[in-house]
Amino acid sequence: MDAFRARAEALDAADPLAAFRERFVTDDLLYLDGNSLGRLPKATAERMRTVVEGEWGRGLIRSWGEGWLSLPQRVGAKIARLVGAGEDEVVACDSTSVNFFKLAHAALAATDRRVVVTNAANFPSDLYLLQGMGVEVRVVDSEADAAIASALTDEVALLTLSHVEFKSGLRHDLGFLTERAQAVGARVLWDLSHSVGAVPIDLGKADLAVGCAYKYLNGGPGAPAFLVVRRDLQETLRSPIQGWFGQRSAFEFGLDYAPAPGIDRFLAGTPPILALSAVEPGVDLLLEAGMERVGAKAAAQTAFLMEIADAMGLEVATPRDPDRRGSHVALRHPAAWPLAQALVAEEGVIPDFRTPDVLRLGVAPLYTRYADLVEAMARLGVILESGSYRNYNTGIEGVT
Amino acid sequence: MDAFRARAEALDAADPLAAFRERFVTDDLLYLDGNSLGRLPKATAERMRTVVEGEWGRGLIRSWGEGWLSLPQRVGAKIARLVGAGEDEVVACDSTSVNFFKLAHAALAATDRRVVVTNAANFPSDLYLLQGMGVEVRVVDSEADAAIASALTDEVALLTLSHVEFKSGLRHDLGFLTERAQAVGARVLWDLSHSVGAVPIDLGKADLAVGCAYKYLNGGPGAPAFLVVRRDLQETLRSPIQGWFGQRSAFEFGLDYAPAPGIDRFLAGTPPILALSAVEPGVDLLLEAGMERVGAKAAAQTAFLMEIADAMGLEVATPRDPDRRGSHVALRHPAAWPLAQALVAEEGVIPDFRTPDVLRLGVAPLYTRYADLVEAMARLGVILESGSYRNYNTGIEGVT
Repeated sequence: MDAFRARAEALDAADPLAAFRERFVTDDLLYLDGNSLGRLPKATAERMRTVVEGEWGRGLIRSWGEGWLSLPQRVGAKIARLVGAGEDEVVACDSTSVNFFKLAHAALAATDRRVVVTNAANFPSDLYLLQGMGVEVRVVDSEADAAIASALTDEVALLTLSHVEFKSGLRHDLGFLTERAQAVGARVLWDLSHSVGAVPIDLGKADLAVGCAYKYLNGGPGAPAFLVVRRDLQETLRSPIQGWFGQRSAFEFGLDYAPAPGIDRFLAGTPPILALSAVEPGVDLLLEAGMERVGAKAAAQTAFLMEIADAMGLEVATPRDPDRRGSHVALRHPAAWPLAQALVAEEGVIPDFRTPDVLRLGVAPLYTRYADLVEAMARLGVILESGSYRNYNTGIEGVT
Repeated sequence: MDAFRARAEALDAADPLAAFRERFVTDDLLYLDGNSLGRLPKATAERMRTVVEGEWGRGLIRSWGEGWLSLPQRVGAKIARLVGAGEDEVVACDSTSVNFFKLAHAALAATDRRVVVTNAANFPSDLYLLQGMGVEVRVVDSEADAAIASALTDEVALLTLSHVEFKSGLRHDLGFLTERAQAVGARVLWDLSHSVGAVPIDLGKADLAVGCAYKYLNGGPGAPAFLVVRRDLQETLRSPIQGWFGQRSAFEFGLDYAPAPGIDRFLAGTPPILALSAVEPGVDLLLEAGMERVGAKAAAQTAFLMEIADAMGLEVATPRDPDRRGSHVALRHPAAWPLAQALVAEEGVIPDFRTPDVLRLGVAPLYTRYADLVEAMARLGVILESGSYRNYNTGIEGVT
């Protein structure tokens, strides 16, 4: 490990993003779970005090006219810059699941086709949602873009995938699959939860997307999510959840629903201002750092992590091509769950476990140091060598 | 006004809930808009610092196992005590609109009947949501319980109403209409947004309910809402939004959706922990005060307000029977909107306006004083007398 330690020291010293770590609340914990819940930006702690004690406590109802009403659009416009969408193509609202429901339902209501293609590696919530929509869900049992592309026929209404797979960390070729889906007349709906804020994204001609703000966007536990609808589709699609915030003139309180023009029609109820306010500072940090630099560091750090894993003889389940992975590395090990527990309990390392046998190590370029990666892997080596992980239970549980 | 001032002084001195005002962040503002956005409880400001800086900032992902995962149920169980439901019949989640969508859709999916009855006074968002569900929506143009009851035929799948109407403040007879709806084989879905935390509620045999936490529950702007499903119905209904938090064993990450047992199946995506945490202290305050005492003070304060309005020759649009109203008083005036603006700009009074001609004055028994009511009405008198309100624009806008 000494050689890795020396290299890490040099890499950290030369890291153009190193100073961003100071912008987060940190401690001695080796936190490799930013892909599940990102760390707290210091600016967010400050912003929450302002929103709660100032805007709510003092401003009260008047704050709706002072920025709250347009918060879904304002935060959405910033997220748009992270995913290569137009500022009027994104709103921040609801949960990823509710947004996925709205967009998939809207796409399916606009066609007579009744087949949706996805894959078995997709995040299960997306599959569950589709299973409630009265369509035929064709689940490709592969992560390979070619295999998925070959399932696209002219019966297909919608192709939906996680851009970066939650277990393996594999990143699909978004442009290629978008083109192939559209070539058969299907729409495509990307779930960007594991790629937004981790790697540069260019949605290009993609029709629809959703994503999560509590991972690499550092928006807080269960943060409101976002949705993207390509501009020229907005007037042709309708949200199934016709709430008053998606209404053309909500405050006229008319009795008949008429969808708002543009992206606003995909809003539903009153936006959760406290939680939504917590999303903005994390997005601002990513915009300040620049996604090209964030993505380059993610590629370098995940490569470094895989190199250490290789040297330790561990099985890496994440693609070697940096353009084909996100910002986490999956190690496959039969004792993944006991290992994860031992790392937390004995070594102050927080990895993530995904059933049945995946140890996920997430790199968050804004606050993860190369030295953290070496140290975490060294501690994993200690546990493997001592066998102490065998004292932990093998029953499975975990959290996103 | 002097006689009213003297009575107010005596009433405040004898008020058993008077001390609760100290538990809120208050100021000199005469805030009669707690029916739109409740004031900030001091405990909530403290709780938010703990959740953001401690549970998220320091606890990170570990906090999911330390109370976050069960927060929708924990907050729901407390709200259950405010509405006369069982602790396992309520969860706090999503927005009122999304919850209304889930429950109305679930009820309609369980029957072949295709008629929904509601009334024109209902909050428009509920009407908009129904209009997206492919059913016949029969809108009774009356607030009278008898007129609504007479629309209930054996074609009706669902009766849905606001328990307290958002404009007039009229409170329906929940027990009577529930019984009449069920007598024709219909389900009933109550929207408790304007009654929860304002008056005692006994849902009794009611099938379904939703409600808002940012009004009388003082849960913060756009706070997560709640939903209620009667215990014996839970296994027979399915949410249309089959997200992973409603899945039987979410963390096994299986590919096939199976709804969780009980109320949990009506959850969708990851709960918004920051916003949900802000809901709990406000609910705790109401439980501590007791809804019987809160309701009694609401009845007394709204009666006092109407008495002053009568003395001023203003038109009161809210029922005189305290059992038939909520905790706000609607004054009908052709210049309601200019009057509302003048009160805010010139007199430090925050009322609420509802198109086209309603000035809403909300009483929040935990922090509204009788003296506040006299003073606000005196200032309204000043503006009416001076005619200064005529300088304000008559174009209509407003916020919930």
